[in-house]
Amino acid sequence: MPLLVLIRHGQSAWNLENRFTGWWDVDVTELGAAEAKAAGALMAERGLDFDRCFTSYQTRAIKTLNLALEAMDRLWLPVEKHWRLNERHYGGLTGLNKAEMIAKAGEEQVKIWRRSFDVPPPPVEPGSQYDPSMDRRYAGVDVPRTESLKDTIARVLPYWNKAIAPALKGGERVLISAHGNSLRALVKHLSNISDAEIPSLEIPTGQPIVYELDDDLNALDRYYLSERAA
Amino acid sequence: MPLLVLIRHGQSAWNLENRFTGWWDVDVTELGAAEAKAAGALMAERGLDFDRCFTSYQTRAIKTLNLALEAMDRLWLPVEKHWRLNERHYGGLTGLNKAEMIAKAGEEQVKIWRRSFDVPPPPVEPGSQYDPSMDRRYAGVDVPRTESLKDTIARVLPYWNKAIAPALKGGERVLISAHGNSLRALVKHLSNISDAEIPSLEIPTGQPIVYELDDDLNALDRYYLSERAA
Repeated sequence: MPLLVLIRHGQSAWNLENRFTGWWDVDVTELGAAEAKAAGALMAERGLDFDRCFTSYQTRAIKTLNLALEAMDRLWLPVEKHWRLNERHYGGLTGLNKAEMIAKAGEEQVKIWRRSFDVPPPPVEPGSQYDPSMDRRYAGVDVPRTESLKDTIARVLPYWNKAIAPALKGGERVLISAHGNSLRALVKHLSNISDAEIPSLEIPTGQPIVYELDDDLNALDRYYLSERAA
Repeated sequence: MPLLVLIRHGQSAWNLENRFTGWWDVDVTELGAAEAKAAGALMAERGLDFDRCFTSYQTRAIKTLNLALEAMDRLWLPVEKHWRLNERHYGGLTGLNKAEMIAKAGEEQVKIWRRSFDVPPPPVEPGSQYDPSMDRRYAGVDVPRTESLKDTIARVLPYWNKAIAPALKGGERVLISAHGNSLRALVKHLSNISDAEIPSLEIPTGQPIVYELDDDLNALDRYYLSERAA
């Protein structure tokens, strides 16, 4: 039976500061690193094991994966990194404190940007430090300058279909370390969650989410590993 | 101009205890982790950058790579892991303290096992904890039970030819994090070192070794990065 586990990266420096992060490459905090290690230790204790891992191009997700794999004694597993698993690009909101943003644009507008399905924030200013086309890791990528959640889902799913789903169908057990919105994309797809409901689905940091799938990758069960009895 | 940098993993727990390690999967020490971070910081400071990384299936080399990449802000680079970059398999000597081994088999015999080109130690006992065929990571691999340095070179070079050399010829800048003897294999090949001389070539831990290569991958220069003026 194909096994898929999703982990959202541990707490980041900007989660803590309540700033819109998106594609900006912040590190995990000490708490975030501890969450990652605890996630790995829990998976090992429950006997979960993997054949292949996927993560984004962003430090907080890669480091969460590395710390979890180290806690599982599985650093040697193959890891594929791809920008399509990156966090949603928050465009011109990147770097702003959420409180500052509310003061500037109004609570209602910020809520729309954060919680609507298909309304992107204003685009990032070209040439700004938050413009991904300035970053070598995205050379050759048609990078977004802003994204709605719908846009994020639209660029995550081709990678799911091309790289992750075939691994699962080939019998591999897969671990994905990624971000709140790239994981929302996968959960929406796998659990058939509506456009209206998905923006408010919270994905907690550092909590392994287990999917038991059938051979056609339909979800038979989805649960937080920490909430199941040992 | 193709660029290749080799790093031997930072000090491991068994380097410190002076035990034959080989394929046993020990971690780096605190000093080893600090060596890895310093190597990454030095490479970043000198403006070295990479497109692709290779490492072994062994925690001490993978962790050295991860720590160096983190110090360079390059965790997002693609990393390919392969057992052919593993340390030499020390067979029945694995786990033994070098002093104990000398007491048991005699200094001359131990010197022969360590320093000859083509004399392997006795094979590991089948089913022992040091038998790699007991380890899931080597499933499907025709694992060695002991190796001479010659044997190690013979299994490293096919991977060089198949995976690493093509990346370099394709214009990629390559970083390899590996082990004393798998790196001896590469240095012997690239620098045309004789069978008689290679066993005594020491590769220090955590020191980036820079190869400047021509388009046919002939070595134009080889040096320790730390020994070149900034």
